[in-house]
Amino acid sequence: MIQKLIENIKKTNAPIVVGLDPMLAYIPEHIKKAAFAEYGETLEGAAEAVWQYNKKIVDAVYDLIPAVKPQIAMYEQFGIPGLIAFQKTIDYCHEKGLVVIGDVKRGDIGSTSAAYATAHLGRVQVGSQQLTPFGEDFATVNPYLGTDGIRPFLDVCREEKKGIFVLVKTSNPSSGEFQDRLAADADGTRPLYELVGEKVAEWADSCMGETYSYVGAVVGATYPEMGKTLRRVMPKCFILVPGYGAQGGKAADLAPFFNEDGLGAIVNSSRGIIAAYKQEKYASFGAEHFPEASRAAVTDMIEDINKALERR
Amino acid sequence: MIQKLIENIKKTNAPIVVGLDPMLAYIPEHIKKAAFAEYGETLEGAAEAVWQYNKKIVDAVYDLIPAVKPQIAMYEQFGIPGLIAFQKTIDYCHEKGLVVIGDVKRGDIGSTSAAYATAHLGRVQVGSQQLTPFGEDFATVNPYLGTDGIRPFLDVCREEKKGIFVLVKTSNPSSGEFQDRLAADADGTRPLYELVGEKVAEWADSCMGETYSYVGAVVGATYPEMGKTLRRVMPKCFILVPGYGAQGGKAADLAPFFNEDGLGAIVNSSRGIIAAYKQEKYASFGAEHFPEASRAAVTDMIEDINKALERR
Repeated sequence: MIQKLIENIKKTNAPIVVGLDPMLAYIPEHIKKAAFAEYGETLEGAAEAVWQYNKKIVDAVYDLIPAVKPQIAMYEQFGIPGLIAFQKTIDYCHEKGLVVIGDVKRGDIGSTSAAYATAHLGRVQVGSQQLTPFGEDFATVNPYLGTDGIRPFLDVCREEKKGIFVLVKTSNPSSGEFQDRLAADADGTRPLYELVGEKVAEWADSCMGETYSYVGAVVGATYPEMGKTLRRVMPKCFILVPGYGAQGGKAADLAPFFNEDGLGAIVNSSRGIIAAYKQEKYASFGAEHFPEASRAAVTDMIEDINKALERR
Repeated sequence: MIQKLIENIKKTNAPIVVGLDPMLAYIPEHIKKAAFAEYGETLEGAAEAVWQYNKKIVDAVYDLIPAVKPQIAMYEQFGIPGLIAFQKTIDYCHEKGLVVIGDVKRGDIGSTSAAYATAHLGRVQVGSQQLTPFGEDFATVNPYLGTDGIRPFLDVCREEKKGIFVLVKTSNPSSGEFQDRLAADADGTRPLYELVGEKVAEWADSCMGETYSYVGAVVGATYPEMGKTLRRVMPKCFILVPGYGAQGGKAADLAPFFNEDGLGAIVNSSRGIIAAYKQEKYASFGAEHFPEASRAAVTDMIEDINKALERR
């Protein structure tokens, strides 16, 4: 899947990913009204609104982008019906040729971690059958439990040629509370995120595609200096970069996340794309034409990032 | 819910929790055969086997225990049908008066973390309705992203009187890779798990029940010395202790996790209870009588732990 991701990035000339993180507050009234008319103000009604909203956005932008990143929490909050909408979204994006990064941030140990890897990237054995549960192409993974938690994902990645992005330095203001702690060992003192990055690089070496590894990392756009260090620590890893746009990350900050080959990073925007029609800049589209607003926002984002990359 | 947990522990005199972590390999053939006959070798068939297995175990042990801890990964690996079995298990355990700890180890930031908190502990607003998604009483949470990731859970805990257990020191062999790193700050040098423990104690102070906080911690039975330190660092927190039994934790190691009042810890066993019939000790029950084997294993576990607590 890392090859498919790279192909898609080259084809679209767009190192970006659209975060499909629908909140009911983003969804235009006419979509919600239709969904509630059919299913009532129920979890099913909310899930239907989410699915219709996603579908229209995907229809409007799929030819411009390599990948999408549905955030499972936004679906999980609507219980089982919400997760059915998550599944439909994955399947629909696959039909459209998109790489699907499941932003699930799972992390556990041993057989439990293996079960998560199976759920999102693998196949499960039921009697004589091998069945696909959710079937994303990549999943985000939390490293707090150490190698025991990651190894089962690596096994599935090798078998299925799928990938993971391990949280290294997250984009939020308090990410430093633990991730920036100066940790001492025989090699001296360095921040925890750097130690995690070194482990990610090790894991990545054991799961190589042609030029990049199946194992990538998450590093927030809001920390470009750390991004520079981590780019060096994990040369074979794709970096998934959240925090552009709504969270304050600027295109000029993104250059350090990329390698010399122009690859190695993929920048996420969620709200900035899917709720573009709510921004002043795209307000003239109106709520009825929210998909066109999203398309315009994608075009602008690609131009913004490519310009910043040319300038470096 | 921390009050209900304490009441249930006092009523049963059993500071334990049964981990409902079903793997198909644990489920007796006759259960699987019946499920596959009805639904085929499908995700639905697997989920039906899981649900029937859980139901029989819960029926056999519910009067002896205060709480259960379904591990969502084991359900998620069967996709949507698996998660429906997870939901049915939660609802059934509630009918039986049990406290339900959703072992979900979720962790994200801001609105995403809020969505996870809503999914597992809260209610979601859909139009004019407030609806309950999964509805567990407690959830396990990963701290790697810092306070930004925890605060939304605290808000929901206060509103719903529910609780969380934050991962501090996990039971697995490689948990030390990051959790044991010596971190330096103005107060000197101490391991990361202790810093995380200090943060958990702060969060706990802001979410107090009568004597204990809604905010607890996960500390593995396999690290009793660290348990002793963390007990001191987080005096108002219940500690959820995995790793007893199958992972090597002994009853004698458990005393440091409890407070003087005999409360403050709840010890989990999963495989050791739900697959008891596969152990030599309980093999005479046979696969047909697996629920009775589980009941015997629960009785033995309670006796084992209470003896160790009396000896201290």
